[in-house]
Amino acid sequence: MKVVRGDGHRAHFPDGEISGGKLVRPFECPERVEYIEAALDQAGLTDDVEPTAVPDSLLRQVHDTDYVDFLHDAWNDWTAAGYSGDMIPTCFPARRMVQRVPNDIDGRLGYYAFAAETSITDGTWAAAHEAASIAHTAQKLVSGGDAAAFALCRPPGHHASRDFFGGYCFLNNAAVAAQGFRNDGADRVAVLDVDFHHGNGTQDIFWERNDVFFASLHGDPRSEFPHFLGFADETGAGDGAGATLNHPMEPGTGFEEWSAALGDALARIERHGVDALVVSLGVDTYLADPISSFKLDSPDFSTMGRMIGEAGMPTVYCMEGGYAVEEIGVNTVNVLTGHLDA
Amino acid sequence: MKVVRGDGHRAHFPDGEISGGKLVRPFECPERVEYIEAALDQAGLTDDVEPTAVPDSLLRQVHDTDYVDFLHDAWNDWTAAGYSGDMIPTCFPARRMVQRVPNDIDGRLGYYAFAAETSITDGTWAAAHEAASIAHTAQKLVSGGDAAAFALCRPPGHHASRDFFGGYCFLNNAAVAAQGFRNDGADRVAVLDVDFHHGNGTQDIFWERNDVFFASLHGDPRSEFPHFLGFADETGAGDGAGATLNHPMEPGTGFEEWSAALGDALARIERHGVDALVVSLGVDTYLADPISSFKLDSPDFSTMGRMIGEAGMPTVYCMEGGYAVEEIGVNTVNVLTGHLDA
Repeated sequence: MKVVRGDGHRAHFPDGEISGGKLVRPFECPERVEYIEAALDQAGLTDDVEPTAVPDSLLRQVHDTDYVDFLHDAWNDWTAAGYSGDMIPTCFPARRMVQRVPNDIDGRLGYYAFAAETSITDGTWAAAHEAASIAHTAQKLVSGGDAAAFALCRPPGHHASRDFFGGYCFLNNAAVAAQGFRNDGADRVAVLDVDFHHGNGTQDIFWERNDVFFASLHGDPRSEFPHFLGFADETGAGDGAGATLNHPMEPGTGFEEWSAALGDALARIERHGVDALVVSLGVDTYLADPISSFKLDSPDFSTMGRMIGEAGMPTVYCMEGGYAVEEIGVNTVNVLTGHLDA
Repeated sequence: MKVVRGDGHRAHFPDGEISGGKLVRPFECPERVEYIEAALDQAGLTDDVEPTAVPDSLLRQVHDTDYVDFLHDAWNDWTAAGYSGDMIPTCFPARRMVQRVPNDIDGRLGYYAFAAETSITDGTWAAAHEAASIAHTAQKLVSGGDAAAFALCRPPGHHASRDFFGGYCFLNNAAVAAQGFRNDGADRVAVLDVDFHHGNGTQDIFWERNDVFFASLHGDPRSEFPHFLGFADETGAGDGAGATLNHPMEPGTGFEEWSAALGDALARIERHGVDALVVSLGVDTYLADPISSFKLDSPDFSTMGRMIGEAGMPTVYCMEGGYAVEEIGVNTVNVLTGHLDA
């Protein structure tokens, strides 16, 4: 399995993340990639590929064009306004307020965000663009005949919706890969999101589409981030009615229940009849993850990969979350080797 | 003119406010009240009244009952979850997300907020409750026959909507006074909001009501907080159609244009035929205010007060914003003495 990776992610690392009322070192940090790279090396997954830049037109199929422009220009607009700290949004268009894009950068920052723990920095656009390019390149490999590829994306992408960022995500890497499969001839694609947190951005992007099935296994939003999407009664709308599947699970869920939900999701994806699969691979379902509450252990990730591999679809794995930094490498690689063992 | 004031506000003073990507000392600070008190003393406005507790039923006429419960319990719920920092919301129900109240305190904190610069602390409920009680007591004085009264409220209130806090506001003091007038027999009431920032909370609370006219003069939301309400085309809905008036003005607006808008608002209020007036008195229209962009000078506040006083309505002034701390006292008192000179 080829691995698409790059060093551009290092350009994005905010000074702080708001957590528990304090500015703390961000959980989503560059070392996450380093531990994964070390584990890939150790497992012999060393067939590396450099990313090819994602076409702007593809980004704008997935995201609203004004949102892409906002992300591209954000840091320049911020510093031009005289600010020197990272871009932390502070004012949001809540219910019953007007969804109209402000002119000033403070207002636009809140308009295009749904969470305040995620900052934009000087290097965010470059890093997010490379992550999307990594996903795009992995998709191209699989569309070109590879059975599977691993896109080592950082920052992650699945919380980024058509027009807002948050949850450490800016551009939706998995959605870029899924749309890329469609552009390259796949009639139907699925995104399977196994990150602990609901992939609200991906769901939003494909909500009204039948050609991209979205399935997510995640912590119940009643008590877990992103709180306001990912309920079981969300199943898609319009042309996409029935093409969204949510499996929210309670804190403390272990692999037995989790793997049953995975089996159900894979069966639903198979019934939908898809030509390619994108896996939003978060490993924050791990029992020691500092901001999540499932109880999967490291060997469970091997089983997870084998189950996905046994489904037999051309597959792109896009890295999402996972914050138990020292274990993120082995857990991620266990999924990939599990897939290869299928 | 009697002055209702208390010391309870000191219980609320968060460690930091997110501004320009940094945690800075909150602009909304206890010294604001101290400077106003000193200026009141100097002007001989020393007829002080202690606040009487606002009835819970009145609070729940103005705010949704679950929101009042949230504010009351928030700090206990937060510390019970193991947090020790101030309560800074981080995840918000953005457009196309589900407006469903989460179970956990992180989720509920974001659900009941529209801005992340405003924190809840150990003492926030007590301070906000006293501020609402101060507004309530001032209304009772005026309903009892006083021509005017000054409610020295802190924290301010006009950004607090039916069910969310933000912009330094938790309970809507002006709305409490307006609803109190109605409860005590006034057929129609007006809230005139002269704070630099749009009174989005007050507008929201009375949006569909004809019995409380809402007029606001403020910085254009296209470039000023709260960004997502206060446009000129917002005029009320349902029974309240036509009973909301917004005068957004450009950065740099001086008193000539501003006072023309005030004259228009007072004429509209007079035409509505109201029995009592609540003034949301922010003095952040002052030329040296650090977070605002109008150009009113200290003598202009005397003229402002005289114009309002000349309207001849029973009037409660509720303190809102003003962050040029050393000048907040004289500017506030200029409004009050201007009113008395009318």
